[in-house]
Order: sequence, then C-alpha cells, then structure tokens
Amino acid sequence: MQDLEFGEIDRVLQRAFDEDLPASDVTTVACVSADAEARARIVAKAPLTLAGQAIAARAFAMLDASVRYEVVVADGTTVEPKTVVATLEGPARAILVAERTALNFMQRLSGTATLVRRFADAAAGKCRVVDTRKTTPGLRALQRYAVRCGGGHNHRNDLSSGVLIKENHIRAAGGIAAAIGRARDRAPHGLRIECEVLNLEEAQTAVDAGADVIMLDNMDDDACREAVARYKGSVILEASGNITLARVSTLADIGIDVISVGAFTHSAPAADLSLLFEFA
Amino acid sequence: MQDLEFGEIDRVLQRAFDEDLPASDVTTVACVSADAEARARIVAKAPLTLAGQAIAARAFAMLDASVRYEVVVADGTTVEPKTVVATLEGPARAILVAERTALNFMQRLSGTATLVRRFADAAAGKCRVVDTRKTTPGLRALQRYAVRCGGGHNHRNDLSSGVLIKENHIRAAGGIAAAIGRARDRAPHGLRIECEVLNLEEAQTAVDAGADVIMLDNMDDDACREAVARYKGSVILEASGNITLARVSTLADIGIDVISVGAFTHSAPAADLSLLFEFA
Amino acid sequence: MQDLEFGEIDRVLQRAFDEDLPASDVTTVACVSADAEARARIVAKAPLTLAGQAIAARAFAMLDASVRYEVVVADGTTVEPKTVVATLEGPARAILVAERTALNFMQRLSGTATLVRRFADAAAGKCRVVDTRKTTPGLRALQRYAVRCGGGHNHRNDLSSGVLIKENHIRAAGGIAAAIGRARDRAPHGLRIECEVLNLEEAQTAVDAGADVIMLDNMDDDACREAVARYKGSVILEASGNITLARVSTLADIGIDVISVGAFTHSAPAADLSLLFEFA
Amino acid sequence: MQDLEFGEIDRVLQRAFDEDLPASDVTTVACVSADAEARARIVAKAPLTLAGQAIAARAFAMLDASVRYEVVVADGTTVEPKTVVATLEGPARAILVAERTALNFMQRLSGTATLVRRFADAAAGKCRVVDTRKTTPGLRALQRYAVRCGGGHNHRNDLSSGVLIKENHIRAAGGIAAAIGRARDRAPHGLRIECEVLNLEEAQTAVDAGADVIMLDNMDDDACREAVARYKGSVILEASGNITLARVSTLADIGIDVISVGAFTHSAPAADLSLLFEFA
Amino acid sequence: MQDLEFGEIDRVLQRAFDEDLPASDVTTVACVSADAEARARIVAKAPLTLAGQAIAARAFAMLDASVRYEVVVADGTTVEPKTVVATLEGPARAILVAERTALNFMQRLSGTATLVRRFADAAAGKCRVVDTRKTTPGLRALQRYAVRCGGGHNHRNDLSSGVLIKENHIRAAGGIAAAIGRARDRAPHGLRIECEVLNLEEAQTAVDAGADVIMLDNMDDDACREAVARYKGSVILEASGNITLARVSTLADIGIDVISVGAFTHSAPAADLSLLFEFA
Amino acid sequence: MQDLEFGEIDRVLQRAFDEDLPASDVTTVACVSADAEARARIVAKAPLTLAGQAIAARAFAMLDASVRYEVVVADGTTVEPKTVVATLEGPARAILVAERTALNFMQRLSGTATLVRRFADAAAGKCRVVDTRKTTPGLRALQRYAVRCGGGHNHRNDLSSGVLIKENHIRAAGGIAAAIGRARDRAPHGLRIECEVLNLEEAQTAVDAGADVIMLDNMDDDACREAVARYKGSVILEASGNITLARVSTLADIGIDVISVGAFTHSAPAADLSLLFEFA
Repeated sequence: MQDLEFGEIDRVLQRAFDEDLPASDVTTVACVSADAEARARIVAKAPLTLAGQAIAARAFAMLDASVRYEVVVADGTTVEPKTVVATLEGPARAILVAERTALNFMQRLSGTATLVRRFADAAAGKCRVVDTRKTTPGLRALQRYAVRCGGGHNHRNDLSSGVLIKENHIRAAGGIAAAIGRARDRAPHGLRIECEVLNLEEAQTAVDAGADVIMLDNMDDDACREAVARYKGSVILEASGNITLARVSTLADIGIDVISVGAFTHSAPAADLSLLFEFA
Repeated sequence: MQDLEFGEIDRVLQRAFDEDLPASDVTTVACVSADAEARARIVAKAPLTLAGQAIAARAFAMLDASVRYEVVVADGTTVEPKTVVATLEGPARAILVAERTALNFMQRLSGTATLVRRFADAAAGKCRVVDTRKTTPGLRALQRYAVRCGGGHNHRNDLSSGVLIKENHIRAAGGIAAAIGRARDRAPHGLRIECEVLNLEEAQTAVDAGADVIMLDNMDDDACREAVARYKGSVILEASGNITLARVSTLADIGIDVISVGAFTHSAPAADLSLLFEFA
Repeated sequence: MQDLEFGEIDRVLQRAFDEDLPASDVTTVACVSADAEARARIVAKAPLTLAGQAIAARAFAMLDASVRYEVVVADGTTVEPKTVVATLEGPARAILVAERTALNFMQRLSGTATLVRRFADAAAGKCRVVDTRKTTPGLRALQRYAVRCGGGHNHRNDLSSGVLIKENHIRAAGGIAAAIGRARDRAPHGLRIECEVLNLEEAQTAVDAGADVIMLDNMDDDACREAVARYKGSVILEASGNITLARVSTLADIGIDVISVGAFTHSAPAADLSLLFEFA
Repeated sequence: MQDLEFGEIDRVLQRAFDEDLPASDVTTVACVSADAEARARIVAKAPLTLAGQAIAARAFAMLDASVRYEVVVADGTTVEPKTVVATLEGPARAILVAERTALNFMQRLSGTATLVRRFADAAAGKCRVVDTRKTTPGLRALQRYAVRCGGGHNHRNDLSSGVLIKENHIRAAGGIAAAIGRARDRAPHGLRIECEVLNLEEAQTAVDAGADVIMLDNMDDDACREAVARYKGSVILEASGNITLARVSTLADIGIDVISVGAFTHSAPAADLSLLFEFA
Repeated sequence: MQDLEFGEIDRVLQRAFDEDLPASDVTTVACVSADAEARARIVAKAPLTLAGQAIAARAFAMLDASVRYEVVVADGTTVEPKTVVATLEGPARAILVAERTALNFMQRLSGTATLVRRFADAAAGKCRVVDTRKTTPGLRALQRYAVRCGGGHNHRNDLSSGVLIKENHIRAAGGIAAAIGRARDRAPHGLRIECEVLNLEEAQTAVDAGADVIMLDNMDDDACREAVARYKGSVILEASGNITLARVSTLADIGIDVISVGAFTHSAPAADLSLLFEFA
Repeated sequence: MQDLEFGEIDRVLQRAFDEDLPASDVTTVACVSADAEARARIVAKAPLTLAGQAIAARAFAMLDASVRYEVVVADGTTVEPKTVVATLEGPARAILVAERTALNFMQRLSGTATLVRRFADAAAGKCRVVDTRKTTPGLRALQRYAVRCGGGHNHRNDLSSGVLIKENHIRAAGGIAAAIGRARDRAPHGLRIECEVLNLEEAQTAVDAGADVIMLDNMDDDACREAVARYKGSVILEASGNITLARVSTLADIGIDVISVGAFTHSAPAADLSLLFEFA
C-alpha cells in the first residue's frame, strides 16, 4: 500500500497514457516485432535524490504485466551520476512505449526531491522544510510524496485540511483578531489555527487572538529572531516567502520551526535520468 | 472554441479542485461572509510572456458563475513587471478559493511561454522551435498551447500522431534502412517518416532509405552545417539534444529547419504572477 | 458557490440518475404528454430541521432547466408538520421523474439535521456536537453539510485531514507516548494531535506526551468531570461513545468541549417529506 | 461473479476511499510501521442478519492485496451477539485504514438485512416483502442485495425496468383507464402494468382496464381482504404505505401477494458490528 | 428533457470528441480564421426516416454555444432525397470540426430508423416490431430511440429489466417448466416471464408452466398460425429469428403480437446525409 | 500489450456492461445455479474474416476470471462456415451473461474485417485500402484494428493526427494554394499535407502549392489515370468517394497509391457468429 491516496498512481498513469497513446505507437508497432524482448536500465546522469520508483515500475506493468522492473536504489536515496537506479527486462514494445511516460514522472519527482534534499540538509534537522499548495495541477499527491523523499515535510494538503488565514481573509473578516476568532469558532477542532503576519505587531495581535501557528511572511532575519524570542514554544513559527537555500541554515539556527518553499513544486528543474536499452 | 481538445480545460480544472477542495475551504468559509464582494487584479511581477487566460478565467467561473473576469493582456503578449494582465470582480469567497488554482496554471503556462519566446526570438523566424513529449503528465495539451503562445511550434502530439524512429527502434528493426522501410510500409500515409541520427553517416543512410525528416541528435554545429549542405530542401532537418539558447541563432543561421527543446515543458520555472485583492 | 467540494452536487445527482434511469421512465413517458405542465410543493409531514434545498432544486433542473424551484424555507430551519418548504412549476415529466431522487436526498439530509438539532439544543451552546467518519459511503460531504444545518460542527473530514490516534495505533506504536511522539514528529504542523483514551490514567499519559485533544472514549460522567477539572483550557476535551440525547446536557454542563455522535450519519431515520402535485 | 452490476463493488469502494483518503492516513502512517502485521476479527455486537462480506473483503484487498480475509459467516445468516463473522490477517496499515470504510458498508447493509429478515419472518413465506426506490443514492444495488440477504425480494430496480402508474400519472393521463391504456400501448411487452389505487373502486377500474398488478396504497385490512376476494389469481396484489411489522402477518394471511416497505432502505439503523485487532 | 437516460447525449458526444480530437483539428485551425462565420445545411441524399436531430444539434453546441442549429424536419419523419433536414449558422471552425461527429451519429440513427420504418409499415399496426439486445456497444440508448423514431417499439432494455428464458437457461434449469418456475419465484413481480420455444410442443409446456410471453424462435408461418390459434389473448406471442421484410405482413396478419429483429441495430446501413457549407 | 490505446478494451467493455447490466441478469440468476459449469464454442455461420478475439475473451474474464477462453482461430484469418473460432469453459452464469456483449463486438468487428478483406484482395497488394473517420462513435480504435485484421491500412486516426484539406477548408482559406500554404506554415512538421481535389486542374494547383498527398475525390478512372501519369512518385495519390469493390482492381492497376472507403466502418453488416453451449 502506497503512502498516497488509493488508486492515485493508476489514475495519473492512465491520464498520461491517454495523452500519449490516443491510438497506438505507430513507430514502435512498425519497427519492433511483437515478440522482441529487451533489457534496459534507468541511469542517473547527474547527482540527484531519487523519487518515483513505484510509478515508473507501474507504468511499464500497466502496458505489459510481464515486464520485470527491479528497483536498485530506493526512493529517497541521493546518488552520484552514472548510478543505475533500476533495471528492466521484458517485451521491447512495452518498454519503448512506456519509456517517456515513466521518465516524465521520475524526472519531475526526483527534481523536487533533489531540491528539497538540499534545503533539508541546510536545515540540519533543526527545523522542518515544507511544501506549499503551489503544486502542479494533477500531481499534488506525487509531488508531496517527492517532498518527503527529499527529507521534507508537508504543509496542509488542501484547503479543507488546514486553516491558514492570509492577508485577504484578514481584510475580509475585519482584522486579525476577528479572523482568528471566526476560524476558532467554526473550523474543525482538530485543526490548528495558522495566521500569516507581515510584521511583529501583527504577530503579537495574532498570538493574543489565539493563533496556534504564525506564518512570518517575508520577514527578515532580525524580525524572525525577535519572533522566536517572544513566542518559541507557545506557538509554532513558520517562515515563508523568498526563502533561498542560503538563508535556510540561518533561519534554522535562529529557532524557526518550519520553513515553507513554493519552488519545491513549482520550479524544480527535472532531474537528469535516462533509460538505456540492450536488446535481446 | 478553444484550440484544444474539447472539454480539456474543465477536465484539468475539475482535477485541480478535486485535489485542493476535498471538502470546503475551511478558512474562507469561516472568515469571509457568503455575500462579501471583492475586486482583484492579476499582476506580472517579472518580465514574462503570458499564457493561460482562458483557464484562469474558467477557474473562477466554475466556482461561481457570477465572477466577472476581464482579460487585459492577451495570451502570447510579452509584458513588463507590474503589468496588470487581468481584473476580476465578484463574490470574495470564490475569488479566494480559486486564486491558487488559477495561478498554479497561469504561472506554469506563462513560464513555458516565456522560455519559448526567448528561443523563438533567437531563431528570428529562420527556423521553428518546437516542443517534445517531455511534458508534465496531465498537462500536455495546455503546455503545447503555451509553446504556441511563446511563438513556438509543436512537434507530434503523441505516439500515435507521428513517426519518430529512435536509436532503439533502429536496433530492434536491425538497422536504419530496415526501420525506415518498415515504417513506410505500415504507418498511415499522412505521416512523414522521421528518423533520429547520431552522425552524418547515419544521416546518409536514413535519407537513402527514404526518411522525410532527419533528427540530428546531439550533433555539433559543423555536422549540422554539413547536413544542411547535403539535404536542405529534400528532407526536413531537425536539431535536438542539449540545445542552449546561445546556440539557437547559430543553428537558425546554418539553415536547420526545426529545433526541438525538452526544457520548454520539463524545466521552465514558474513565471511570477500574483493576484491582488481590493475588498468592496 | 456551495459550501461543498466543487462539483459534488452534480456528481451525486448524476450517480443517482444513473441508478434510477438506465434508459427512460417508461411509465411517465407513456402516461404524461411531453408538453404537460405541473405545479407541485414539497411539504414536511412531521416536525423536522430542513437540509437539502440546493440538491433538490438541482435534481429537477438537471432533468429540465425550465423547472422553476422556489425555496420557501431555508436549510437549517426547524419546521412544523404541513409546512410547505418549496414550490415547483414546470414540465410535468421532469418533475415526476426527479421526484423520488430529490426526496431521497432531502429526506436523508433532513433526517440527519433533525437529529443533530436535538443534540445541539441539548448542548445549549456550551459545547460542540460533532459528526464522525461513520458516514454513508458516497454522501459524506452532503451529510456533513446536514450536520452543520442542524447546528452541529464537523469532526475531521477524512483520514488525511486530522490526527486521531486510536487504541490500535497506540498498540502498534508501543504505547500512548510513543504514538503521540511519532505523530508530532511526522504529521503536518497544521493538525492538532488527538488521542483516544479509555480512562484517566491514559488521559494523563496523553497530556504529558503532548496531545492537543483528548477523546474520552466511553468514560462515565464522573471521569469526564475529573478530566475537565484537570485539563480544561490546556487541551480540548472530546467525549465519545454511546452518547445518548439524555446525557448531552450533563456533559455540556460538566465542561466537555466536544461531543461526537456516530448516529448522526449512520442511523438517523429519513425525515418525512413529500411532494404533492397540482397539474396545470 | 457477484449478483450485482459488473464493477459496482469496486466503484463504490473507490468513491468511499476518495472521500476518506484524499491524501494518506496521517495517523496510521505516523504511528504504524510499514511492515507491521496484524490480525483482526469482525464481531457482531447485537443480533443481526449479515450482509456485506464481499464488499468488506474487497475494501481491505483494494488497499493491500496481501490482506487475507476469511468469511466465517455467510451473508444472509442471522447471528447472535459476539459472533465472529470474519477474520483478517495482513499488513496492519491496510487493515487500519480500510476498517471504517469496510464497516460503514457492512453495518448499513446488515442493518437493512436485519430489518427485512424480521418482515420476511412475519410473512412466513405466504407473501413477498419487497423494497422500493427509496434507496440511498449511490447504494441502490448494494441495498437491494441486502434486501435479498434478509429474505426479501426486490421491486423494480429503476424507472426503466418497471411500469408503476401512480396517482400523478393517473391525473396527467386523465384517469386510471387512460393511463393504463397508454402504458399498455407503449411500454415494452415484457413489463407488467402496475397501477396504484387508493380504494376498491379505483381497484376495479384498474383491473377492468387491464392492470396486471394492483398496488393497494394505504388501504386498511378490510379493504385488502376484499381486494383479495375479488382479484386473487387474476392480478398480483401489492400492499404499500405504512406497513408496520405488526401488520405483516395479517396481510400475509389475508392473501396479499407482495408487501413493499420503504423503511428497509431509508430508515434501517446501522447494525452493530466492530473490528477488533490483535497485533502480531 | 430527452426521452433517454439523463446525460446520455453529452456522454456519447464527449467520447466521440475524445476519439476525434485528442489535441486540436490541425487542418481547420491552420486554414480557417477564428472569426470566420459559415452557414450550412444538412441534406438527405436518399429516401430515409430521420433520427438524431438532438444529438447533431448538441454536437455543434458543445464545441461552440453560439452555433445556431435549426431543425427543419423532426425526428421520425420520412423524407425524399434532397430534403434539407436542418440548417446551421455560426463559427466556421466549430461547424467544420463537429461535422463528421454529428453526421456519424445522424447517419447511423437514421439508418436504423429507416429500416425499422419499412418493417413497421409492413406490420401496418397489426403487431409491434421491436429491437433486440444486438445493439452497438455504447450506443444502445440512441439506437433504441431510433427504433422508436422508425415506428418500432423496444424490447427489454437490458438483462436486468426483462426475463427472457432462452434455450441455455432451460438446459441449465433442467427443462422449460423448471426454468419458468424458478423465474416466477425469483424475478421482480413487475416483469412478465418470457420463454423462447422452438416448436409447438415446447410452447405448450411453457404456457402450462405459466409463461406470460412466448418467443417463437425460427418457427415457420404454419407453426406461428397454430400458436396464435391456441394462445392468442392468454399469452403474448413474439416471433423471432430470420424475420425478413417480406414475411412481416404475413406474421402480422396471422395475429402474432410482436416481431423482433436484430438487424435493426446490428446491420442497418448508414443513411445518406451530408452537410453542405456556405461561407459568409 | 494490445495494438490499441491503453485501457481501451476494458473501457468499451465496461460501457457495454453498464448498458446491459444496470442491476443483475434476472433470468440467469433465477434459472442457473451459481455453481453450474458450462462449455461453449463460438462458431462462424458464414464465410468471414475474424476480428475481436481479445475483446471477446476479456468480456468473459471481466465477469468471471475463471472462464477459460481458448482462441482457435487468430484475428485476421478468413474462415469457412461452421468453423469453431474459440472455445470456452467455466461458470455457466458468466458465460450466459457475457455472451451477447462478446458477440456484439466480435460480429461487428468481423463484419468490418470481412468487407475490408474483399477490397484488399481486389487491390492485390498494388495499393493500400484504408478506412476513414466515418467510424461508429466510441468504437473507432476497435474498428481501425478490424480494418488491419482485414488486410487494410488506416488513414489518419483523428483530426489532430493528420492534415486533410477539404473543400470547405479551401473555401474558408481563399483557395487551394492559400490553404496549403497556411497548413505548411502551421501544422506539425511530421505531418504530410493532404489536399482533396475535384478535378485535374485543382490537382495541379495543389501539387504546385506543395501538397504531399492528393485525394482525388469522386474522379473517374480516366482522370485518375492522368493524375498517376503526372504525379506518381512525387506525391501520394489517394482515390476516394463511391469506391465500389468492382472498381478497386482497376484503380490499383492504374497506379493509385491509396483507396479510402467509408463503408468499412459505417455500413458493414454484422458477421454471422454464434455461441453454442454444452452444459457440464
């Protein structure tokens, strides 16, 4: 049982094949005999943190259950260039047809895991690095999994599973205290009340109103340090907005609890992996 | 009628809302009154080429048909920072709930369009720049549209709508000539036969065997120049593999017909756009 | 915009019509002319708290957009027998065909709202009454909405949007403290850690380990009173298990924060509503 | 092959998991190791007639094919409290995650079967007790199966598979004779013509017009007795409306052929079943 | 409200466009300006009975809501060659893209209606001509509608909405009487019991066992005549198997009640209709 | 791995069962014991070219995985009447329930293959016979497969995977040369530009404008002969419109490259196959 919504892997793969195979693969059907067998291996061509073995394996198996896919390197492992991460053996047609789909997933997920790994390493276990809702539509579950593979944690999954009061909610509600009050009154009791603040004054208002988590939005190191001094232990402190890799270890040292980074899921470049064939 | 598969925009938006709204938006429902109205504008925060107006507009409309979304800048336009690209007016809840989803699409599509625009400008109309099948699973149709917004052209949509004989097909078929022969024999007659080659010798074999398009894979400028000298006009010449922006104008000047770039759809960073509210 | 997952009402109605109309309604098509018009009203035949106007209205509109459905009594209102809660006017065929489907939803949702209303009245605003995950498969979103119509609150929506450590998790983790520790370590930081306990000793262990919410499972009034005395204000106290209507006011008076009741969604009898026609 | 629409069990389970697992189960993933094994048993806690073994078994298998589910008591059996109805063994995570979903189905279906069993016992084989279309949207096929498990029969499945002329059809058609005439003229020849009547006079009109089945709606025992005296053998006689358990044996003795009861599917309380774990 | 399962037309059209438009129409997008307008008319090129106006109209409207489709000739009408059956006006792209899809439906449905019309005319109102379950997968609802347009009636919609005991059921049950007995015992009471028989001896057995409908399978005119003589009025008599148009009036004259013909839905040639453009 | 879009067979079968089994098969469930076993064989009752083994086999397996289906005659084989093409063995209920669905597919696909086979034989390998987009909605992939089974080739799969400029595109673009120019400018470079022409003059214009394929629409043998004389080898020549079997060998002898025939998929009568049981 995958650590994902049930059925998710098959669902995203079906969609991917719907896109790539509206009919059949004209090239492969023409050039490759139905009974040709092949071996192949998936190789990292740059340093990367791997994510996506289950979906890559399933991509081949959906096309032909007789493809044997062997995981050489587990998801979450950081590997050097030229590392063989998986080997395959089976019908050449199925391997050729699914190749791009499998890699499209694995390269993106490993791209995210690789970026997260760097941030998590910088945080050195002193604080969490987490994702945001700035995910690729249709791939949220997989991207959040990749974040975990890179040593990160997840922020709320969706709008229904977390309270995060942002500037616009505050203005609509008529102020921080009012917004927090309404949320405490109406949100399910299992959810903490998180409130975004732009400065220390707002932070104080939010804490006074009963916020459980304060998101320090685009606040500088000094302001973050002061927030830690005031609230550490009584509320959870999250830093967000323009978090560069360079700044992570400082924020971690200051005592921030959580650092959230949109780029993990919206701008991580694809990791360089390729599939090399050996025909039987 | 969008220049896309019928129903595609609604389908990808439904999926995006399925991810982001398994129940309702607990924060917005708590903090914002059902009858609150808001105005907002979508603003470019960096130079970018825009793509995604129709899907952003539809994202708000799906949640509440009374949201008025006005396109200020058409898809395909390159804008300066601080440009307002769209304005919105309507129920505050719907605008707040759909904000992230709308931006998740528009930022990614504009990211692709922006990158393509740079390559297309470098090609200066002397050759096509095209995408590949290295698309984000589930978003191929939209990404290909973004490529067109950036001034690029599309390569084949999928495995069924183009013949592209790659190294592995060649090995499976027993050589370039055999592979091309089998494809000519079996592929629909409306498809050109494209063959990937690694050097000029292979190129010659492919042309002799009747290829209509030659993909020069990872070949250097000199080899490309020689290929143009030999085959220009009789076959279509496509350069592929490690195409940097710096190299595009050279390849265009040499006389290459088509340049294909995977990064358009697998590694373009999200464009910087944000939605700013004004509450009524 | 409904306070529900986007598209949910249409989705459940489509499923309902799939069940009830695999082809067409043979009786109505035979007996009722295509141009016959009718008026009808939906009437409460017993005291009840209403829920389901939007879905009932949509049921008729999906079959024929020209049906005019007028809400007379808003969801959440408690009405006396013989109250007209809605009136309809339009094509007789559509009204006849959708009648049972509309009522199947409205009767069930009002059944839940009616039961919740009694519990919420007994709690008299001193504590929350909430639902559980013992919902009817396929109708969770609607049932949770009905709970809100009855004056109740919702517990976590699903397994992904709340941490609730039950007896079996405790045993698997090797004890209350270990389970709570693991959950604090891994769960998204926006979720409170809720732990089920069977007695005051376990409650103490859970509080010491950092639980944010304690679910007092099947504990009697005295034990609940003692838990309130010890922990009120520092953790949220939830009573669960065999909560009868008779016991609610006692628990509310004791100072319990939340009372959860499975019967709201698994055993509420359908409310008695019917649709009466007047043909034009 | 289940005695259900093909694919129905997987479809309703997928929907149930969609509701309950939009991402993963945060509690279980945190507290329970991926390799933990568990045994469990499903136990009746009150007297009940069982229904739902196949769907409960499949719920666990969908999450993890390695769960071994053993049926101890077959659907349709009436059991005493404390009876073990099934045993499970396999990965603890899958069992914990699917537990509520499996029970949500089994408790509802057994609730229906238990109620039907009582009515069927009262009818003592002298007449059929049948369900109605007052089913829970999305669960009709399963509920009708539960009715059969309880010893009942099914009425028409849907509006397309049976002719049932009700009061409103009669008014729209301009009278009982006209309605029956139109239905005989147009309905598929494999369907009997059933007509609802409110008194003996209407019954006579319906029989004269060629009805094959007469539904005696809310008619008292004496009127039912007279209808049997007049029509038994020439038409099928169905009693409907406010059928209490107490009245069933009388109606059966009188000679009524079919008794239909909406409460089987709209108001049966959930049966009391629970799942008890033993961790390995 | 169409006389079809709710949502059926949109569903089959969506599927058709999924097949025909995996991306966009490359020819139309290239050659036709987005703002070009066109008029067109759909013309019968041979004598035919029309069916499919609603689905053709919807095909264009789904692609572009601004297409105006005017029905000139109603479904069910028999027309001469060169008759204009509909006119269209609107965006040229949408009309060009949807043309083939609209015609694919209308030609097939009119093909069925045209064939049925001939049989119904031969029956001259003396008996019903009906379809079978030998329908095109995915198009059953539409084909059954076309049968009605041609003046035919429908047989059972599906395996759930009618009892038809065939030779193999008889053998499995251990004889005609046993099979009919089991069906009477278990089938919903709203369904007549139909039994296929191969000769008069079997017919007698079936009638004695309580069959409501006898299907005379591949029996000659004399045998049919004898069956009518014996059973007319007490059971419904259906003739089936190798029913040619030439034989219909004989069977109708003999007194057969129902004639069923598989060819209506499995072998009717497409009717000849085409769409002619006039560009603005 | 089938030479079809991934998942297609299961998808069309699921739809077919949705149509035919909204609940269960009342006749089979009543008459046939759950444990009854049967053997059966599928037999050709007329000369035909077979297509559809995989989908027929899957139809039975979807209902009951224990049905053993043995292919006796491979798709693409032309057989004599009375040939057994497949044998089955397994649960009688599953075989009875799936029988009609399996045959509905196999009869239609074999009908197409049989018709194509005749045309392909007449072409005698001198030219291709191909299908069109005049396919049955929802069955395009399967019908195109049947065309290949009959020895034919496929034309473009859909509007996205081929450029075919028809009369209306020409008029919208302002002439043949303009239309071809626009298509060359904008269509993906892997697609040939095909243009429909009505006479030799138009053909010359199209060739001059750079068309790669010329479709000679409704042109007589002499005009076709002249087109071959002028263009053979430099463009591909396709004949279309009113192609009778009688004319195929003439066109093939003349030197036409491709002959396209709409009737393959819109008017092929169902092939005569039946399933005969032997009960155990």
